Amino acid sequence: MSGSTIGKNITLTTWGESHGKALGCVIDGFPAGMELNEEDIQKFLDRRKPGTSDATTSRKEDDLVEILSGVFEGKTTGTPISLMVRNTSHNSADYSEIASYYRPGHADYGFDQKYGFRDYRGGGRSSGRETVARVAAGALCSKLLGIMGVKVTAYTKSIGDVEIDPSKIDMNLRLQTPTAMPNAYADKRAMELIHKCREDKNSVGGVIECRITGVPAGIGEPVFDKLDALLSRAVMSIGAVKAVEIGDGCKVATMYGDENNDAFEAVGNTVSKMTNHSGGILGGMSDGNEIILRAYVKPTPSIAKTQDTINKDGENIEINIKGRHDPVVVPRAVVVVESMCAYTILDLMISNMSSRVDGILNFYLGHNN
Amino acid sequence: MSGSTIGKNITLTTWGESHGKALGCVIDGFPAGMELNEEDIQKFLDRRKPGTSDATTSRKEDDLVEILSGVFEGKTTGTPISLMVRNTSHNSADYSEIASYYRPGHADYGFDQKYGFRDYRGGGRSSGRETVARVAAGALCSKLLGIMGVKVTAYTKSIGDVEIDPSKIDMNLRLQTPTAMPNAYADKRAMELIHKCREDKNSVGGVIECRITGVPAGIGEPVFDKLDALLSRAVMSIGAVKAVEIGDGCKVATMYGDENNDAFEAVGNTVSKMTNHSGGILGGMSDGNEIILRAYVKPTPSIAKTQDTINKDGENIEINIKGRHDPVVVPRAVVVVESMCAYTILDLMISNMSSRVDGILNFYLGHNN
Amino acid sequence: MSGSTIGKNITLTTWGESHGKALGCVIDGFPAGMELNEEDIQKFLDRRKPGTSDATTSRKEDDLVEILSGVFEGKTTGTPISLMVRNTSHNSADYSEIASYYRPGHADYGFDQKYGFRDYRGGGRSSGRETVARVAAGALCSKLLGIMGVKVTAYTKSIGDVEIDPSKIDMNLRLQTPTAMPNAYADKRAMELIHKCREDKNSVGGVIECRITGVPAGIGEPVFDKLDALLSRAVMSIGAVKAVEIGDGCKVATMYGDENNDAFEAVGNTVSKMTNHSGGILGGMSDGNEIILRAYVKPTPSIAKTQDTINKDGENIEINIKGRHDPVVVPRAVVVVESMCAYTILDLMISNMSSRVDGILNFYLGHNN
Amino acid sequence: MSGSTIGKNITLTTWGESHGKALGCVIDGFPAGMELNEEDIQKFLDRRKPGTSDATTSRKEDDLVEILSGVFEGKTTGTPISLMVRNTSHNSADYSEIASYYRPGHADYGFDQKYGFRDYRGGGRSSGRETVARVAAGALCSKLLGIMGVKVTAYTKSIGDVEIDPSKIDMNLRLQTPTAMPNAYADKRAMELIHKCREDKNSVGGVIECRITGVPAGIGEPVFDKLDALLSRAVMSIGAVKAVEIGDGCKVATMYGDENNDAFEAVGNTVSKMTNHSGGILGGMSDGNEIILRAYVKPTPSIAKTQDTINKDGENIEINIKGRHDPVVVPRAVVVVESMCAYTILDLMISNMSSRVDGILNFYLGHNN
Repeated sequence: MSGSTIGKNITLTTWGESHGKALGCVIDGFPAGMELNEEDIQKFLDRRKPGTSDATTSRKEDDLVEILSGVFEGKTTGTPISLMVRNTSHNSADYSEIASYYRPGHADYGFDQKYGFRDYRGGGRSSGRETVARVAAGALCSKLLGIMGVKVTAYTKSIGDVEIDPSKIDMNLRLQTPTAMPNAYADKRAMELIHKCREDKNSVGGVIECRITGVPAGIGEPVFDKLDALLSRAVMSIGAVKAVEIGDGCKVATMYGDENNDAFEAVGNTVSKMTNHSGGILGGMSDGNEIILRAYVKPTPSIAKTQDTINKDGENIEINIKGRHDPVVVPRAVVVVESMCAYTILDLMISNMSSRVDGILNFYLGHNN
Repeated sequence: MSGSTIGKNITLTTWGESHGKALGCVIDGFPAGMELNEEDIQKFLDRRKPGTSDATTSRKEDDLVEILSGVFEGKTTGTPISLMVRNTSHNSADYSEIASYYRPGHADYGFDQKYGFRDYRGGGRSSGRETVARVAAGALCSKLLGIMGVKVTAYTKSIGDVEIDPSKIDMNLRLQTPTAMPNAYADKRAMELIHKCREDKNSVGGVIECRITGVPAGIGEPVFDKLDALLSRAVMSIGAVKAVEIGDGCKVATMYGDENNDAFEAVGNTVSKMTNHSGGILGGMSDGNEIILRAYVKPTPSIAKTQDTINKDGENIEINIKGRHDPVVVPRAVVVVESMCAYTILDLMISNMSSRVDGILNFYLGHNN
Repeated sequence: MSGSTIGKNITLTTWGESHGKALGCVIDGFPAGMELNEEDIQKFLDRRKPGTSDATTSRKEDDLVEILSGVFEGKTTGTPISLMVRNTSHNSADYSEIASYYRPGHADYGFDQKYGFRDYRGGGRSSGRETVARVAAGALCSKLLGIMGVKVTAYTKSIGDVEIDPSKIDMNLRLQTPTAMPNAYADKRAMELIHKCREDKNSVGGVIECRITGVPAGIGEPVFDKLDALLSRAVMSIGAVKAVEIGDGCKVATMYGDENNDAFEAVGNTVSKMTNHSGGILGGMSDGNEIILRAYVKPTPSIAKTQDTINKDGENIEINIKGRHDPVVVPRAVVVVESMCAYTILDLMISNMSSRVDGILNFYLGHNN
Repeated sequence: MSGSTIGKNITLTTWGESHGKALGCVIDGFPAGMELNEEDIQKFLDRRKPGTSDATTSRKEDDLVEILSGVFEGKTTGTPISLMVRNTSHNSADYSEIASYYRPGHADYGFDQKYGFRDYRGGGRSSGRETVARVAAGALCSKLLGIMGVKVTAYTKSIGDVEIDPSKIDMNLRLQTPTAMPNAYADKRAMELIHKCREDKNSVGGVIECRITGVPAGIGEPVFDKLDALLSRAVMSIGAVKAVEIGDGCKVATMYGDENNDAFEAVGNTVSKMTNHSGGILGGMSDGNEIILRAYVKPTPSIAKTQDTINKDGENIEINIKGRHDPVVVPRAVVVVESMCAYTILDLMISNMSSRVDGILNFYLGHNN
């Protein structure tokens, strides 16, 4: 089973290859009654669109989304929402050579071993273009979460060794800078690094941070469906991500208990925490504070530099990958991380609705027990 | 839904609270015909047993497993394997106080917000004791993987700032040292740190590494059920884990493409890689090399030091947590990480069996297409 | 995968063989806050207990249930509820002979073909005793449904050619008559038929009807998770059931549209239907009327009469099945049908809670959109 | 969750409304390497196409399928296969009236109660047109099953009181007669009945039988995923089906054990049964004989006769449904039943591949244990 569906009460199924006819997704179980039009989704898709700056590939992909089902008279109907983006800009000739060898850092070899052959055009199913479908779904989930008072915000934290100063964040900038960094100075320096990479026929990695506010305490399920477990799976399922951390993340390994524990405190009638080392998640459930997640993204594996590899006949060869590739995937992946987090939070908030008998009776009988 | 089941073709369902009558699990879909007895499982459970050294709590939990179903005449039957461990050593009096307040670093507050109340005895369902059931299941999966030529090996990489020297690993030691470190010198230093923590009424974190050999290329599914995505979910679902990384992990964020890419090479008839920055996983599928995962574990939240928190009435109070707690959970969590990885790998290897029409025809018709 | 889990938001996992150490189940996702004790469950189990009359086997099975987890201070906690019934009365000697041959009407041959061998003691996993776990779960679901105003009532409609007169039903009787028929006269005649069967070393089938009231319109999902589809699956998964029908069921095949359609009518402010040919389900969703389902149960395959079959060596032989078997399984299966229906309805009612944005906002924000 | 996905190792997700832009499905987990083109699917779709005779609606729906993903160079790739059929022939004006009232026998009322409103054009998601997606998927599954030696054959057994003579079946005819009956005489009489219904502004029901050969013994899982349980769910999820039976089905309720049991016999080296009352399924697993299932289909609820119902304001009204409707849905539903059976069998045969350790070792190590 090729594992293209995720979720429980709201399920997301994606389909499509980089250079096939189209890419798309089906979102099943999305509740009825939310206003939705194609523009809502297009805004999200445009955030991962390439060709908008030097930071990304010069390929042009308009990625116009079409709503095929599940919306009637401008509102979601509760039935499956099918979204499709036609592939228009593909130039298969660019990729024909890679049919014969295995690109380092790519899934080519695994695909051939698993399935016996592969759609080699632009990475096929393992292309970053698959995330178009995730972002389309993320647009819906973010919109509903917004109505529910939950805000999911991802941005570029670092590219290579250029990191934003956390004390100088202007969050609005993340939608304007080519790097998706919420700081103009770091953005400028990161762009210089990216230009250098392009000149060197090389690429570079980075870190994406996602912050989620407005999630009440108790979201997430205590054992295998912990909030952090499902967020990790959702974010690690994005192609280039090699590590995921929550709150203080890796640093906890060298911390002491009295440093890492967050003291609860009552501020008026509100329960708060004095610190947030936990990143808003304790025991797999939200603790009422801001949820903080970081994804570590590897450098784009498609580089123009000469590389060693083997061909399908098992011969050692040297290759030079052609085509138009992003020297860093981080800026375009920001909205993908945001989408996967939005999706995961929404699905778990829905699962949470049946945690108590009281909530069920209130729904069906209009009163608490 | 409380999310106590994981997996697809082999499913693992765990149940039980720290101080309830018993803990257990049901493993459904485990294939028929493997020899299995209680000793196979007990060996794994003994690796997480407390009270064996100063590194762990002085609580005594014998954790004797009982096979209740699914095994007949010494072999698995293909039907659900139900395993149970009776809770014997609990002393609820130790925990009665914590009913009234929210322990920092614990799930107490989330539980109350989610369910309206909680089983406060020893953490209830969110206790580390829940992992008894995971380890019992891990024993089965590891045994079958062993027969299939796959070896899953976890060990302690660091405790606090004490890290093993990767060039001086004696893997057999990990089953003998109290810290589960595969190096006697690091173990000795880590034990000193742990003693210091105990004196300071404090606790400390650490890193667990897991290495998996023998997995053929192509295991894992290309999109949401990527090998790294499901490993991350499985490992992050262990209570104290705050970060998971694969291969070079977090470091990839500051690497260049030509540093991070692993060149394929043909060595005789074998496909190999010159390096293994990817940690054995590319595009969500195994690439035929050793799979490497690291889990970052936070310090035990239950510390004897005075801490600030609130009680259930919303009043700010100071607490001193009593009871016998591990100053570091890492050594006992090693076998839990190993179990979750073994489980995930096995389930994905089974899913992989239907990747090709050829494999299906070979199974049913006894020949390739 | 042996398929021992059913459901979505509330999942039921059963385990155990007829003559193993114990049978049990894990109910995960059951909401927190319902009062529950062992007596609640025992009452349901006693309805399927054998040995209470001539209608059933003379085997004595006390089937005492033990709650192992998920209940604290007399209330469900929202975490997995583990229930176990120890097997006490088994006499494996009775069954040793059947290890060597395949009983007609039983799963013996399929088991051997699938798994290579089988636990032959009393049918192992395919024994009717597996339903103990279903009934234990049914007790919980029925209790919660009762609080929600939903009543699930199953009873024996016919045994062989003895059928109750639908105009003379006294529903209280179904819990008192040995046949579970809600009519004393039919019960008496059915008991005569059963005695005759026993004398003839034969067995007989029958029909179980289940009626469900109080389900609001709109429960069930429009496509694959239709209310009738999931009820059929749940009821057909009971060993001896060979047909399931809803409302007029099989009769619809010879009806005309104007006979089968139920006219809606407004009675005061209430929407009603003039007839109920649909059995309360239209388009896979409840229509607000009584839900009516019938299960057709085959005669007990274990009969004392001489039968032809083959042994494991592939030789044609004659057998006489020994042991104490029910001449009809219908009376004991009534509570199993009721349990599976209760479970299915409850799980779908919970899924339905996220059908509308309004319901979600009401839950999280305490008001409608 | 709107329940539009079914299956485990191969999952089928359908989407689309009767009068939306398009209908389609995503088949995920279909194995790589099967030759597939649009013509393979079109042949199946044409079997449910209306307008081909007096037996069906005069609406013209060309239902041309487009393969959007998952096929490369004429072969399935193992990644999701996305299929789409554009809606071309809809004339929404025909349906505008039904927005205001609830049609008897339809899901209109349930939809409004569940979701707050509905896509009223032609039944929206609950239209019979949803089955286009099921049939498209069925074409793929049937093709692969054919290669595996499994044949799934459905046909019309009866329409109203016109039933085929089981001793006079010419199976090839089922693809040629307008009623899908495999007997010319019965077809002729059934067509007369259908003409009469049309004249009477009425409709009629019927029975579809499905026979499956070539399934080895042991397919299906012992408890909730029994072969008959999953077939029942799959077939009952087709809109108009009100009863499903296996083998002797409803008749078993009045049979005796010695009538209903099928004696096993050895014929040479082959295990056979002297009779097949079980319909090829014992204890939820195939027994190696022909699998026989019947679906009872209700009369088309859309009839031109005057009917009583209520409008959305809760007023009692009389209606005359306009539009072009099938006087009987049975002939077009035959291929839908066949598709759902093919899908279910294939998915269970794939699940069965991991039943034994031997099979797994053979796959991965190329030898038996």
